[in-house]
Amino acid sequence: MAIKIITVSRQFGSGGRTIAKQVAEKLGFDYYDKEIIENVALETGFSKEFIASKGEEAPGKTVFSYGFESQAVPGIMNGMTTHDYLWTAQRKIICDIADSGKPCVIVGRSADYILREREGVLNVFIHADMPFRIDRITRLYGESENKPEKRLNDKDKKRAANHKHFTDLQWGFAPNYDLTLNSGKLGLDKCVDIICGLAK
Amino acid sequence: MAIKIITVSRQFGSGGRTIAKQVAEKLGFDYYDKEIIENVALETGFSKEFIASKGEEAPGKTVFSYGFESQAVPGIMNGMTTHDYLWTAQRKIICDIADSGKPCVIVGRSADYILREREGVLNVFIHADMPFRIDRITRLYGESENKPEKRLNDKDKKRAANHKHFTDLQWGFAPNYDLTLNSGKLGLDKCVDIICGLAK
Repeated sequence: MAIKIITVSRQFGSGGRTIAKQVAEKLGFDYYDKEIIENVALETGFSKEFIASKGEEAPGKTVFSYGFESQAVPGIMNGMTTHDYLWTAQRKIICDIADSGKPCVIVGRSADYILREREGVLNVFIHADMPFRIDRITRLYGESENKPEKRLNDKDKKRAANHKHFTDLQWGFAPNYDLTLNSGKLGLDKCVDIICGLAK
Repeated sequence: MAIKIITVSRQFGSGGRTIAKQVAEKLGFDYYDKEIIENVALETGFSKEFIASKGEEAPGKTVFSYGFESQAVPGIMNGMTTHDYLWTAQRKIICDIADSGKPCVIVGRSADYILREREGVLNVFIHADMPFRIDRITRLYGESENKPEKRLNDKDKKRAANHKHFTDLQWGFAPNYDLTLNSGKLGLDKCVDIICGLAK
């Protein structure tokens, strides 16, 4: 099976993004991460920060979100939330990337689900234990909050809720991926090697 | 990190057992699968068939299971079920195997959880999609039931419920393993190579 697209989902702080970037470099694949948010911003007119935060939220099914928020999107009055609107824009961009036929690595944004019917897609999930992730976000990103564990758990919960809402699949459940790796235990380099080995 | 013990959990029909056996052969590791059931049989006096079936069941918390079944185990009258009794016997055997210090591969029996505090353990989960598994159980094991999908789903549910009952962990949830592999997509040989590559 020739792999043309690698999607990388990841726990925050697991090094999943670093692994994805190195895989793309080693294989000579295009790399999409914040580029998707930039394209959604161009498409929708929302700011990148707004899109990034919405993209990791669990859409709340409240009168507020179905009422007020839907009216905030020009031309959409049929009850679609901002989250739904951003999802469709994001989905279109990811499909366009896949349609281009150029080999690529796509980080996050439920690309695994969006491209599920296509041939040649390898879906990867990267995770690591809490001490590894706490060390990583405090050391590399300079995160200085008092409760990094709470912040990581909150991030996980939001990503899981967002994924569940739009895909009805459990984020991080092994059978939803082709390969999942504990980057803390195996090391980032080994993860890169395994993924590249499958794509070559 | 030197890997001394590889635990392999697997969906029924995914080829996980075949992968585990080939990994053990390639690495020159001891292999434990039915051997554990045989040792539990020696330890407890129950038949191998009885142990195998109980080991994949979800213990029911009914008056029947806490009442009648507990009385079926000689000398245990404090409410321990047969499932609990078999779990402790099995746990002891798996710990004894680990204590021996000889490198080994252990299939199933929640060995990943039982050995969670030890150094040098690699926890692997193997899964595959339904068509691959149906083909495998009908072609290789001669399963001829009318509803193979139902049988596979029932097996998954039982293993998940058993694992949850004794470990409080979700069976198949990626963060509970170091490596999970879609054997149907990647192929059994590639799975063997990846696992051996990590243990060498």
